[in-house]
Amino acid sequence: MMTPYYLVDKSRLLPNMEKIAHLREQSGAKALLALKCFATWSVFDFMSEYMDGTTSSSLFEMKLGREKFPGETHAYSVAWAPNEIDEVLANSDKVIFNTAQQLQRFEEKSRNHTRGLRVNPGVSTSGFDLADPARPFSRLGEHTPEDIEPVADLISGFMFHNNCENDSFERFDEMLGQIEARFGPLIKRMKWISLGGGIHFTGENYPLDRFAERLKRFAGENEVQVYLEPGEAAITNSTTLELTVLDTLYNGKNLAIVDSSIEAHMLDLLIYRESAKMQEAGDQEWMICGKSCLAGDIFGEFKFDHALKPGDRLSIQDAAGYTMVKKNWFNGLQMPSIAIRELDGTERLVRSFTYDDFAAALS
Amino acid sequence: MMTPYYLVDKSRLLPNMEKIAHLREQSGAKALLALKCFATWSVFDFMSEYMDGTTSSSLFEMKLGREKFPGETHAYSVAWAPNEIDEVLANSDKVIFNTAQQLQRFEEKSRNHTRGLRVNPGVSTSGFDLADPARPFSRLGEHTPEDIEPVADLISGFMFHNNCENDSFERFDEMLGQIEARFGPLIKRMKWISLGGGIHFTGENYPLDRFAERLKRFAGENEVQVYLEPGEAAITNSTTLELTVLDTLYNGKNLAIVDSSIEAHMLDLLIYRESAKMQEAGDQEWMICGKSCLAGDIFGEFKFDHALKPGDRLSIQDAAGYTMVKKNWFNGLQMPSIAIRELDGTERLVRSFTYDDFAAALS
Repeated sequence: MMTPYYLVDKSRLLPNMEKIAHLREQSGAKALLALKCFATWSVFDFMSEYMDGTTSSSLFEMKLGREKFPGETHAYSVAWAPNEIDEVLANSDKVIFNTAQQLQRFEEKSRNHTRGLRVNPGVSTSGFDLADPARPFSRLGEHTPEDIEPVADLISGFMFHNNCENDSFERFDEMLGQIEARFGPLIKRMKWISLGGGIHFTGENYPLDRFAERLKRFAGENEVQVYLEPGEAAITNSTTLELTVLDTLYNGKNLAIVDSSIEAHMLDLLIYRESAKMQEAGDQEWMICGKSCLAGDIFGEFKFDHALKPGDRLSIQDAAGYTMVKKNWFNGLQMPSIAIRELDGTERLVRSFTYDDFAAALS
Repeated sequence: MMTPYYLVDKSRLLPNMEKIAHLREQSGAKALLALKCFATWSVFDFMSEYMDGTTSSSLFEMKLGREKFPGETHAYSVAWAPNEIDEVLANSDKVIFNTAQQLQRFEEKSRNHTRGLRVNPGVSTSGFDLADPARPFSRLGEHTPEDIEPVADLISGFMFHNNCENDSFERFDEMLGQIEARFGPLIKRMKWISLGGGIHFTGENYPLDRFAERLKRFAGENEVQVYLEPGEAAITNSTTLELTVLDTLYNGKNLAIVDSSIEAHMLDLLIYRESAKMQEAGDQEWMICGKSCLAGDIFGEFKFDHALKPGDRLSIQDAAGYTMVKKNWFNGLQMPSIAIRELDGTERLVRSFTYDDFAAALS
């Protein structure tokens, strides 16, 4: 298969799915895939055996979930446009509004639909201000019980999304306690509560059973159906970005240029100034650089047991989350294909991109 | 026309084009549009009346230039892949290699082609390390006369690209002097020299005639044809991103949520942590926020003479450069359409994007 391509490996997806299935069973919570993180629909049938459906950040994500992922379809948007709302209501099981004003605006239209409201508890775990929903002046959700009270009878659930890359059960537990302390009476009036995504419960050593117990207790004490919206947790470590070295040079360091780009194909590495992950061996250090014009288009520095040369193949690890959903045509670089490795080890190409796709992205 | 859409206004493009035409006439330099910045090919015919062709960062950009923009087509890439080179040679007027090793690798194949080499003079104007081609360990071009000398007879030109958002003629002049001091003997052996892009010579108060004189003198003294590769300079201030307010709220500040997103539609605002530009009036301050899930999806804070409300239309200024070429399907947000305002004021939609485009971007 020609590089570059994203390779989604079902055998590496499976452990995440099994943990999710275990959690559902133990806790009674339902798990919805957050399409904003991963929307490679060729594996949706497989994932749907372990998950309850999808949640979305837009009309199009909601439609994709409805069309491709068997199960429940939750529709959330930071702001619905008037021309979207009919399609949202026609294709979703629940609609979640970001503000009381949005709910009021579409109250009449949505009266016969299951409705929820995003609540911002003002606490979070994000290490990045950029990604912190509790940052000052946040537009994400209603912040106070006083603002929620007037519309509480119009809805049957809340969505909290305040965990971001949170791998600490203790911190999750603590914040859930804060949420109950502040919004408890309102929560008890609801039928369902989504606790959002960002909880790294499929990670190694995460205390999954304690997490399940906490969710079950929350559900029982408040008499609500709990939802989780895993994104990264569902697909972590499942996918590689397969690359080829095109050129090497030495300029104070060993540099290898590959047939991809962080800006175009793994955008979060650039936005959050992070390094890619690669399996290392040996003691020869190489800086792996993208082929875009951007000076800082650098995957990271990694150790190898040999000198890299043009033609060498490399695998960037953990390349599923927030990559394919954000890929773009910067520099007109060849967009990576998408391939699936089945459980029996066979690989199949499910999408490749051409010059015509590039030209059609503009006009 | 339904928002969101990018509106490319030919009457605002025209002053840039006229300055470029004037510069070409005064200096003898040729001007190639840098497609990495702007590749909205519906206005290429118009632009080609004032410019000599295009330059590229990839095979696909080169093909787009060849297909849609009358004139010369320069082909540059940080690294050509072996499977690209035949098509590159078949469709370009010049091929520019990033390293001597790439040139040597494709030497035989490209022997009958006009060839050049990127030279990195080690000086630059970038205020961002991310975008600075002269940063430590830069992979962009050959750095020393000693490394260039062995391949100098194989090529007829150099490409220098060390200006980044440089609005100072004095700084340009100073760096060109440094380039001549260091690479002068090699330059004199060449037939053509590209001085790259990043020179804001279409900006207000830029001393265009001094710039032209400097280019002409450089060309004369070195007996070379000079090329410029304007990107931003060609399209600056020509385009707006047209938006609609979808929701408003107050959370310590007045917040308005619009039907777009910096991450999806004006990515550089996020990467470089910059504010969008908007025409302001009045003293009511509003934070203009995107509708993606990203907490930091904020266009900026602007003053208005009235309270914003859902349905209000807004125009983000100066939205041509590095926007459409990097737009992406993050969150499945509606991708902005592309529209052209003709010189007679009529507006026409040239591209709109649908759910099917979103679903087909994945698989």
